[in-house]
Amino acid sequence: MHGYDGDKAKVVARLRRVEGQVQAIAQMVDDDRYCIDVLTQISAANSALKSVAMLLLDDHLNHCVRKAAAEGGTVADEKLAEVSAAIARLVKS
Amino acid sequence: MHGYDGDKAKVVARLRRVEGQVQAIAQMVDDDRYCIDVLTQISAANSALKSVAMLLLDDHLNHCVRKAAAEGGTVADEKLAEVSAAIARLVKS
Amino acid sequence: MHGYDGDKAKVVARLRRVEGQVQAIAQMVDDDRYCIDVLTQISAANSALKSVAMLLLDDHLNHCVRKAAAEGGTVADEKLAEVSAAIARLVKS
Amino acid sequence: MHGYDGDKAKVVARLRRVEGQVQAIAQMVDDDRYCIDVLTQISAANSALKSVAMLLLDDHLNHCVRKAAAEGGTVADEKLAEVSAAIARLVKS
Repeated sequence: MHGYDGDKAKVVARLRRVEGQVQAIAQMVDDDRYCIDVLTQISAANSALKSVAMLLLDDHLNHCVRKAAAEGGTVADEKLAEVSAAIARLVKS
Repeated sequence: MHGYDGDKAKVVARLRRVEGQVQAIAQMVDDDRYCIDVLTQISAANSALKSVAMLLLDDHLNHCVRKAAAEGGTVADEKLAEVSAAIARLVKS
Repeated sequence: MHGYDGDKAKVVARLRRVEGQVQAIAQMVDDDRYCIDVLTQISAANSALKSVAMLLLDDHLNHCVRKAAAEGGTVADEKLAEVSAAIARLVKS
Repeated sequence: MHGYDGDKAKVVARLRRVEGQVQAIAQMVDDDRYCIDVLTQISAANSALKSVAMLLLDDHLNHCVRKAAAEGGTVADEKLAEVSAAIARLVKS
């Protein structure tokens, strides 16, 4: 069981769309498109990726972290430290 | 002529790598991999995209903006307003 | 009881330091210091603020969210939705 | 002469406001206010700081960078490298 099980199809679909966006951006550079237009598309892909990350994080908190916190003890400690580190990486990325 | 002309092969190669990273992330979700590992890869893809964006921006400033600023007048005004807006989008993304 | 109770003195001290940084930045502008030096200090203040936010979030997850998740039910639902929204605001800020 | 000369009063006023925001956040923690409310205010202060940074950067591009680019040569090279580095720090902060 994963936190994102209920959203799996949606998460995969959104990631495939970001994959298509990045592919299109590489193509834009290959086609010598204007730098600013390329930058605009990179910002859009970044926002899309962060938005998928927020969905995954939300699911993770609501399932894995919630379950571990209910169990308590070392399991809870570990899951909470792990999610904190993941959030820190996301905030910095 | 584009700002990124001298770095074109490098920019395309880095974008293709990010495309591969995002494809692999979608596959991870499809394979029910652990949420935190997926999030870690999303943060890495985000950082890689921002780093390509910085390279493109640097080239754009050094060529297009520099040339327009040397011309002066409305051309310079427009290019400077345009790059400012692109930086703002990048900072927020 | 708050999540940050154990770190309260440390959190307040770090926020007072950021307050001092921002005060010094305003003074730099008032003293006509060079734009790039001002920007460097703003980036440093931003990073310092995000780092305090991560400490507070960590404490919040380990105390308030952990406790609510152990209780379960609506209390857990609400605390988890609330922390997700706070993380999303932080990621975007 | 500085890039922000025309906006100096506005920039100082906005920085003083952020200073007040951070002071109020430290007070919130000292008063044991709820973690999530503190985090919300930190996100707001971060956004306000980034917005001042964008104003300063805009002024810097329109004055210092524009002037240096018009001069050309090493002066232009240096100013462009310097502003690129400042933008990179801002994007990461």
